[in-house]
Amino acid sequence: MDLDLIRSLAIPGTTKIVLLSSDGLGGFPHPDTGRSEMETARLPHLDALARRAACGLIRHVGPGITPGSGPGHLGLFGYDPLRYLVGRGVLEALGIDFDLRPGDVAARGNFCTVDGEGRITDRRAGRIPTARCVELVERLRTMRLAGVEVLVEPVKEHRFVLVLRGAGLSGHLSETDPQAIGQRPLPVRALAPEAEHTAKLVNAFVAEAARRLADAAPANMVLLRGFDQLPVLPRFPEVFALRAAAIAAYPMYRGLARLVGMDVVKTGGTFPEEVATLAAHWDAYDFFFLHYKDTDKAGEDGDFAAKVAALERLDAEIPGIEGLRPDVLVITGDHATPAVLAAHSWHPVPVLVAGRYAAADAVERFTERACGAGSLGTVPSHHLMPLVMANALRFTKFGA
Amino acid sequence: MDLDLIRSLAIPGTTKIVLLSSDGLGGFPHPDTGRSEMETARLPHLDALARRAACGLIRHVGPGITPGSGPGHLGLFGYDPLRYLVGRGVLEALGIDFDLRPGDVAARGNFCTVDGEGRITDRRAGRIPTARCVELVERLRTMRLAGVEVLVEPVKEHRFVLVLRGAGLSGHLSETDPQAIGQRPLPVRALAPEAEHTAKLVNAFVAEAARRLADAAPANMVLLRGFDQLPVLPRFPEVFALRAAAIAAYPMYRGLARLVGMDVVKTGGTFPEEVATLAAHWDAYDFFFLHYKDTDKAGEDGDFAAKVAALERLDAEIPGIEGLRPDVLVITGDHATPAVLAAHSWHPVPVLVAGRYAAADAVERFTERACGAGSLGTVPSHHLMPLVMANALRFTKFGA
Repeated sequence: MDLDLIRSLAIPGTTKIVLLSSDGLGGFPHPDTGRSEMETARLPHLDALARRAACGLIRHVGPGITPGSGPGHLGLFGYDPLRYLVGRGVLEALGIDFDLRPGDVAARGNFCTVDGEGRITDRRAGRIPTARCVELVERLRTMRLAGVEVLVEPVKEHRFVLVLRGAGLSGHLSETDPQAIGQRPLPVRALAPEAEHTAKLVNAFVAEAARRLADAAPANMVLLRGFDQLPVLPRFPEVFALRAAAIAAYPMYRGLARLVGMDVVKTGGTFPEEVATLAAHWDAYDFFFLHYKDTDKAGEDGDFAAKVAALERLDAEIPGIEGLRPDVLVITGDHATPAVLAAHSWHPVPVLVAGRYAAADAVERFTERACGAGSLGTVPSHHLMPLVMANALRFTKFGA
Repeated sequence: MDLDLIRSLAIPGTTKIVLLSSDGLGGFPHPDTGRSEMETARLPHLDALARRAACGLIRHVGPGITPGSGPGHLGLFGYDPLRYLVGRGVLEALGIDFDLRPGDVAARGNFCTVDGEGRITDRRAGRIPTARCVELVERLRTMRLAGVEVLVEPVKEHRFVLVLRGAGLSGHLSETDPQAIGQRPLPVRALAPEAEHTAKLVNAFVAEAARRLADAAPANMVLLRGFDQLPVLPRFPEVFALRAAAIAAYPMYRGLARLVGMDVVKTGGTFPEEVATLAAHWDAYDFFFLHYKDTDKAGEDGDFAAKVAALERLDAEIPGIEGLRPDVLVITGDHATPAVLAAHSWHPVPVLVAGRYAAADAVERFTERACGAGSLGTVPSHHLMPLVMANALRFTKFGA
């Protein structure tokens, strides 16, 4: 659905909407029990909510496609993730709360190991400790390139972010990472004429980085990929006519919310603190994006029991959210992270939409299988916000 | 699906199709009983039909979007309502059986109240009685503007239709209704260069209307919106290779059918009379669009019991329709009108497709929830006609 159409239908109102994204919510059956994390956890409040809500499954990008956190959340915000693209470099910068500005070119960096002939022997430099990454980044960030600022920020282990800041830059660049062992890093090529100048600057950065890291094996070279600039996205508060606040303990999710123009409100590092922040800002906003990270973290760690526990901790916070009496409460996730895969997956993710006009269906539990039989069916993620708007009585009729 | 593709597949045949649109068919559970209007009504004939039909839900425009009657019906006729748009002024003219001609510019008019300074105090002029509207329209329709005919027709209460007829007119005009109290009506602006002349004419009409209505408070001013001209739509009988007849007691639905080139046959004001009309014209047509209004009217009135009764009256007429032995009988609606909302809504609408090749599914009742589990799934409204064509064996194979 087109955002211009949404903009033309959105009307102001007094209703309150909470969109709770439990990161990596969906899971997969444990081989021993045949039950998924959601089917194993005791989730009395979520199940009760599912009984009085319309339920379904969210497919974020397309059949079989595993979404990253960026497209996963953009879809939940109502933006077709195949149409509104955010580069990896930009996402990496958002993930460390870097103040990326319009015109900046950002890239994901890896420290890597090269042999005497410059051939890659380890694309991740033996996953050096983050403290070492910080030291090596110090060597790079003092670099001077003509006409641009060179900003380098450590991320974690072998990962860093490179940002070039200056006039006339372009992110239309090829990657230096050949994605294979035994090959030399590739020179960056301009993928559009306006990127020729930026390509030269990046190649100069790489050459100088190789000199400065020559004695730093295993981290004696860099690989760069995902060059991009901040996209210009339609602003969520204007498209949906909602005063929108984001409450997220992790920088990546704050960054994504900021990218679409939501207000990012200050919150503590735990989910109970996030819920307290929600309560504190209840009157000031119409729409709240609330992010819960623990489900994804446990899934990524491949820790089935930890993911079950994370779900049960989430469940315990539901009464606090319901106590605020949102007109529409939506609970879903940005992608599945099954513990058995220890990674994001393509499986569609449970969703529940609770509200006076949502019409309960026969779903009795908030699980992958139960929601698969729900009345919402399996829907693209960017169809969720229009449905939420309707349930909040914030859409006018289309045509007379 | 593209109408050109449909046109290329449609083949003549001898089969008969009835598309029964029960306006505002879908509802919503009553808070006391948890059952919707369709779940409350006794519908033995519709339920029996559902048992031997393929069932599903129709989503008319998009997720969360509440369709007006225009897009609601265009979708049922096979036209993607987001692609084939009909303006409000045109719909209002169709709604009073006005003989709108190509090139005419139509607008919705409201009588309104303005204070001594010309500021709006009531956008609906206290909903003056229709008889008063007729009197005031008499004052306006004698107006002369250079080079065009000025046609003004009363609708109901404070509403009227303005039509300008002449050469070189355009409907690309802004509205005069500021949609707010305390402001002056806006001058009409041309939204395209070719509309400059029409804008001048409309502003002259408004100025003269203000003079003629000066002593007619509370109806001492007019507001105009939804300027548009008759759209040129592909002709239904040609696209689908069907001799198509529309049977509808209400002018709006006759107008919509005429807009796509269906024959509108004369009928009485009640649904049993419509069914008699259907029988009388059975041999002359291949396709019948049959419209039942009472379900929508009761829903709009917020009268749950009246909607239940309207459904039961519809059910009583089903044997009369089935007695004609249509090859394909489709029953659905143009949108939901839940009594609890007293308005159109975004909820998908039950549909049943009965025919020799439609394949019964497990659905046993013609209700929102039962049809939600039907084999058709939840489908866009403009996908229905291709399915109906196939069931009537009126589509040839695509590709060899």
